[in-house]
Amino acid sequence: MIDPEIQQDVQTHAQAHLEELLEFLRLESVSTDPERAGVLVDTAAWVANRLRQAGVPDVRIVETPGHPAVLGRWQVDETLPTVLVYGHFDVQPAEPLELWDSPAFEPTLRDGRIYARGASDMKGNLLTSIHGLEAAARKTGKPPVNVSFIFEGEEEIGSPNFRELVRNNAEFLKADAVLSADGGQYGPDQPSISVGFKGLGGCQINLRTASADLHSGMYGAWVPNAVQAMTQLAATFHDADGRVLVEGFYDAVIDLTPAEREEIAAVPFDPERAKQELGIDAFWGEAGWTTVEREWARPTADFNGIWGGFQGEGSKTVTPCEAHLKVTCRLVLNQRPEEIVRLIAAHCEKHKPAGTHVEVVPLKGSANPFVIDRSNPVYQSAQQVLTALFGKEPYIVRSGGTIPATGIFQDELGIDTVEFAWSQPGSGLHAPNEWYRVEDFHRGAVGYATLYAALKK
Amino acid sequence: MIDPEIQQDVQTHAQAHLEELLEFLRLESVSTDPERAGVLVDTAAWVANRLRQAGVPDVRIVETPGHPAVLGRWQVDETLPTVLVYGHFDVQPAEPLELWDSPAFEPTLRDGRIYARGASDMKGNLLTSIHGLEAAARKTGKPPVNVSFIFEGEEEIGSPNFRELVRNNAEFLKADAVLSADGGQYGPDQPSISVGFKGLGGCQINLRTASADLHSGMYGAWVPNAVQAMTQLAATFHDADGRVLVEGFYDAVIDLTPAEREEIAAVPFDPERAKQELGIDAFWGEAGWTTVEREWARPTADFNGIWGGFQGEGSKTVTPCEAHLKVTCRLVLNQRPEEIVRLIAAHCEKHKPAGTHVEVVPLKGSANPFVIDRSNPVYQSAQQVLTALFGKEPYIVRSGGTIPATGIFQDELGIDTVEFAWSQPGSGLHAPNEWYRVEDFHRGAVGYATLYAALKK
Repeated sequence: MIDPEIQQDVQTHAQAHLEELLEFLRLESVSTDPERAGVLVDTAAWVANRLRQAGVPDVRIVETPGHPAVLGRWQVDETLPTVLVYGHFDVQPAEPLELWDSPAFEPTLRDGRIYARGASDMKGNLLTSIHGLEAAARKTGKPPVNVSFIFEGEEEIGSPNFRELVRNNAEFLKADAVLSADGGQYGPDQPSISVGFKGLGGCQINLRTASADLHSGMYGAWVPNAVQAMTQLAATFHDADGRVLVEGFYDAVIDLTPAEREEIAAVPFDPERAKQELGIDAFWGEAGWTTVEREWARPTADFNGIWGGFQGEGSKTVTPCEAHLKVTCRLVLNQRPEEIVRLIAAHCEKHKPAGTHVEVVPLKGSANPFVIDRSNPVYQSAQQVLTALFGKEPYIVRSGGTIPATGIFQDELGIDTVEFAWSQPGSGLHAPNEWYRVEDFHRGAVGYATLYAALKK
Repeated sequence: MIDPEIQQDVQTHAQAHLEELLEFLRLESVSTDPERAGVLVDTAAWVANRLRQAGVPDVRIVETPGHPAVLGRWQVDETLPTVLVYGHFDVQPAEPLELWDSPAFEPTLRDGRIYARGASDMKGNLLTSIHGLEAAARKTGKPPVNVSFIFEGEEEIGSPNFRELVRNNAEFLKADAVLSADGGQYGPDQPSISVGFKGLGGCQINLRTASADLHSGMYGAWVPNAVQAMTQLAATFHDADGRVLVEGFYDAVIDLTPAEREEIAAVPFDPERAKQELGIDAFWGEAGWTTVEREWARPTADFNGIWGGFQGEGSKTVTPCEAHLKVTCRLVLNQRPEEIVRLIAAHCEKHKPAGTHVEVVPLKGSANPFVIDRSNPVYQSAQQVLTALFGKEPYIVRSGGTIPATGIFQDELGIDTVEFAWSQPGSGLHAPNEWYRVEDFHRGAVGYATLYAALKK
């Protein structure tokens, strides 16, 4: 299935591709940093230029209320399928800088890896989709199918303008499926293909008891304490294992089928290694499901942060009047974020201790859960290409994470997303010393070229 | 009992006393502020000078590792009783400054009140003990009994060097009882005398699950969440009412006698007014005891602060690896702070969720509870003087608060402390627009002079 000419083409351009990636990685496109807004503009221009250089005839830089996005479209024949490649060119902040062995924005090659912020998430992967296009188009001057691109500059800040971007450009972006270049593989020698992501819905719970913090000597014995009340309320959210006790939380959940559970069990998981890597000595989570099932297919209510009262050095004998809790829920089919936040609000009203006022404020950035329709031809082709590329069948995996873009493509364009990407586990996404394997970079380009070709029935 | 000559003497000097207080209040002796360390030195000098001016023959400024203290001793006859007057000349910070109607350190007279930081806590009260001495000594050139003074400059930062100060000067400070000028009365027309303070013991609970914060999508479903675990642990500390569930917590408690409960019930408490003033709509606390009994005579475990995970704007989908809780306990006879912290540590070990590591770090500033021996002649005299001064019997009150000095005087000098002070409820201690009544200031001086005289059997 792998065309030797494509392999040869990618190999011929390997050095040039690598240099391009290093150049791309030097752009400090940290989307959270307002002072680097200009860098995001430059990076968008760099990406747009690269698409044009690859031959994409219609490339647009689209302004948003935040950082610009880059769209591209290479329509070769309307009777052929169209794939839309998704990615992002913004990166996480590099801090803490002192933990990097080489500077975050001075990409450095060591032991077959490129170390730099954004190497793995996801500038390397983004380029493979373009290099693959070039390789696939080299002989005939055009790609085997219609290929479009949507690269955003705000993924690391939660894609606040992405839905509107897709909606406003729905006609331009029309496609049969999305290929997400944002993701990775099970391991260097083991491919995987993702069939699902969790959804996300969250809220901040604000609890108040009195009109001001009070002296604990005078009032602690008889005025409701907001921190105490919050811990009491928060403790009603889970049973001792971690099953969510919010009434109705599981009502919409479609449980895994025995076949799906078998499929998940086929993917190796080493509990001892996980414990060691994470520095934990016990697992947690909903009883009745394996660790991997919990991660991939069981919903959760995660406490992301809590605060209230005095947090400084030493002691301050205060009876706090307010406390706050951040909760985000990872959702599975067919849960809906708005409904889950509504259930949490009802739970809080029911379980809040006497004398407390509780406000539940939905957090932005919700997403529906997503599980792919496996009859999707792009999914099937991707599975075949991965098998050919690695010489073995991909594991069927899911993610406990959330890709809001996936839900947006479904809502706005009515199409499924297939992840097709190369990052390795442990490659330091969002952490110091992020890396990306040079081998994956070149294999990825071959993968994209092969997939574009495979989509032409 | 009130000597008309003493009343006349205080009245004669009323204007001079007031001007002195204004001068004293202009000194910005904020002990928490390292930049004002020099002001504390100046204020100590001011107080020492004022004692000398009153005729106290032996006045010492004593250096400590922090701010200096002022000691004074006027020994007239070793066969007479000796009282030791306690006070402090440091004040709380004045922030938030914008909430003051007149500048915190520009004392302002309005409606018979002096508005300034430290007016009520406790520069006014401190001066009454000196003005009282002057009035009592005016006729004979010496006070009726032996009077000593210990004024510290670190009360508002928890008196970190006070125990050593007392211990190092135990011989100089030898007395039959302490009169604490730090405190107040039940109301403008109703005296009160305090018979007990709660003790204090506290700790910070540090809980850890993993070696780093983790991505909640990947790990939230199966790695113990430190914030969730902390809320679960914290919720084991109290029953729904507020009774402390820490095993052994009440073991050493001496319950109130029926007579003491009657005495407490005799002090008016208006629950509706308390609710309105504090902005609360329910009471809380250990069942089986009245609100005032809870405040004055039942021990508590107060959560002063909690934090862990993400506390910023919006959402961050993190599984926090650590969380922290500050707990201080108000203690009653015969609880001991070290033992209570030990019980909390044992409770945490027993109730910590699986997969968590809990560290219990004792907080500085512990104190034993204190209840006065009512056969103490100074207590009895104080009660009589208050009755004479106000024309009615004082309420017998206690405080839910803690005065570490009280415990230190017991431990180091073996003597009880009688509160003898004039501040009014609601006078803005530790808050903006702190005030002190001019009438209380002058009556206080008469009170001290009368008490010194009364102690001479």
